Amino acid sequence: MTDMGMKVEQVLHMVGGAGETSYATNSRLQEKTMYRTKPILDNAIEEMYRTLLPERLVVADLGCSSGPNTFLVVSEVLGVVGELRRRLEQKPPEIQFFLNDLPGNDFNNVFRSLERYGKKIEEEKGELLVPYYVVGVPGSFYGRLFPCRSVHFFHSSYCLMWLSQVPQGLESDRGVPLNKGNIYITETSPPQVVEAYQEQHRRDFSSFLKSRYAELSVGGGMVLTFLGRKKQHPALGDLSLLWGLLAEALNSMASERRWRINMLGSSKDRKVKEREHHTLVVFMKEEKLVTFDLPFYSPSMEEEVKAVIHKKRSL
Amino acid sequence: MTDMGMKVEQVLHMVGGAGETSYATNSRLQEKTMYRTKPILDNAIEEMYRTLLPERLVVADLGCSSGPNTFLVVSEVLGVVGELRRRLEQKPPEIQFFLNDLPGNDFNNVFRSLERYGKKIEEEKGELLVPYYVVGVPGSFYGRLFPCRSVHFFHSSYCLMWLSQVPQGLESDRGVPLNKGNIYITETSPPQVVEAYQEQHRRDFSSFLKSRYAELSVGGGMVLTFLGRKKQHPALGDLSLLWGLLAEALNSMASERRWRINMLGSSKDRKVKEREHHTLVVFMKEEKLVTFDLPFYSPSMEEEVKAVIHKKRSL
Repeated sequence: MTDMGMKVEQVLHMVGGAGETSYATNSRLQEKTMYRTKPILDNAIEEMYRTLLPERLVVADLGCSSGPNTFLVVSEVLGVVGELRRRLEQKPPEIQFFLNDLPGNDFNNVFRSLERYGKKIEEEKGELLVPYYVVGVPGSFYGRLFPCRSVHFFHSSYCLMWLSQVPQGLESDRGVPLNKGNIYITETSPPQVVEAYQEQHRRDFSSFLKSRYAELSVGGGMVLTFLGRKKQHPALGDLSLLWGLLAEALNSMASERRWRINMLGSSKDRKVKEREHHTLVVFMKEEKLVTFDLPFYSPSMEEEVKAVIHKKRSL
Repeated sequence: MTDMGMKVEQVLHMVGGAGETSYATNSRLQEKTMYRTKPILDNAIEEMYRTLLPERLVVADLGCSSGPNTFLVVSEVLGVVGELRRRLEQKPPEIQFFLNDLPGNDFNNVFRSLERYGKKIEEEKGELLVPYYVVGVPGSFYGRLFPCRSVHFFHSSYCLMWLSQVPQGLESDRGVPLNKGNIYITETSPPQVVEAYQEQHRRDFSSFLKSRYAELSVGGGMVLTFLGRKKQHPALGDLSLLWGLLAEALNSMASERRWRINMLGSSKDRKVKEREHHTLVVFMKEEKLVTFDLPFYSPSMEEEVKAVIHKKRSL
């Protein structure tokens, strides 16, 4: 809810466990992204390993979630480093993996699948497998998570488009919602809404870079993958379109709810009548939808991401 | 079950959550132990900090569980180091805490209570609070958990009397249970049973020390608290008595079950009759009890604990 400035940190998490609606069984898109960015990740790890040739390597995955993708980055790093140290005839390094996500993430599920994963990777890699250790780090990556200069490599896939909170300033001074009917920036959103989102993204991405800058070891590296846009204006592009369609669907659910209440009377009567017609549908409450906005922003690489990086670099 | 040599690692954990039967609401004894050993812990941390004066301090709690005691050691270390660095006029170090337990531990509960804990400790310590980071480490402390020389201080309270598995060899060659009627060593246990327990403890405690030796930083320290015995023979002492009483209770439940089955007939009849008498009790199956033995051993400090330490030291 926009008026509360509610912290995403306390509420956002993927659906835990391994059921039908869980993230674990609904994360193919994120998996595909990992495969598409694999060459970039591999190069970055190789460069970092060649530069440092460390005895111990600390790798952190930010936004690890809980599902089949959680160990993808672990496998990738183990594969690249294992093969490379053999080619370079180096002693096998020990790799410590820090898997990070918000405290609401289902870490129990991650930890309980670790033994099964360990057996699988041992079979796959055989003698190329280097010793590794996996730990879990609860907390928001928009703040500090690690001691200074203690991490060699950061990875984050499909997470940085989630903001630390719904932007403040999505209401007028008198408390009237400015983005009514929408859940993200659309072509009908007033300029204040666009600015509020941009400001929140600027602040979050700056905090992210500041924290990682403190935590990165000398010679360390980072690969970040997140959703962004090519078009200049935030209301243009696929994501704005996608969220627009979702908003439309939610709005029509809310309208149907209002229509039903008018037609069928009080809550109790309605339930009885709905049961007679064998329908039982949960509808979106209109008043909730009016103040609902996504804690999400897909920035433009040129205009917004690079701008923050350059500003940070010049400080 | 003794014949399976079932790994404690896969099954043992304290009851999660915060309900009536959870470990979180039934761990006063463990809390009291922590308070009694506080001066020893404080001294050890002080000595280690004075020796190393590190910028970054890595502390691991082995067998952290999930409940009010989980953060006791975090608070203790933060208190001692915060106060000491002020007295010695040192820059505040950053402390990284690794909370370890078996993968079945309720880490979700630990992680979700971290924010509340953070607020509390901030209020308590104020300006004396040094920056700290908490992570979770799933795995058995009878194996490696951390990279070489990466931990400054190990703590473990009330855990090391749990073995990595029920000892093997609690059956005769023909598969007859040797410790029938008992769940731990008693005065009626044959010598083979005592030896099997002693051998398992020796092997586990050696593995523990070997792993920690590899993981400890130069100048690091360790405080281990666990249940032991003063008497020479393992069948003597309070713990053997305590488990003996529990075995008696389990045995009489099993006898009552057998008696009921004889008196009341088949399972279905029995349930109906029990319902008529308003009783519904779950009884221990005798055949399960016959092969049940605890993965537990309380060693003698002089004879067994020191012996393993001296043997390790001389290697």
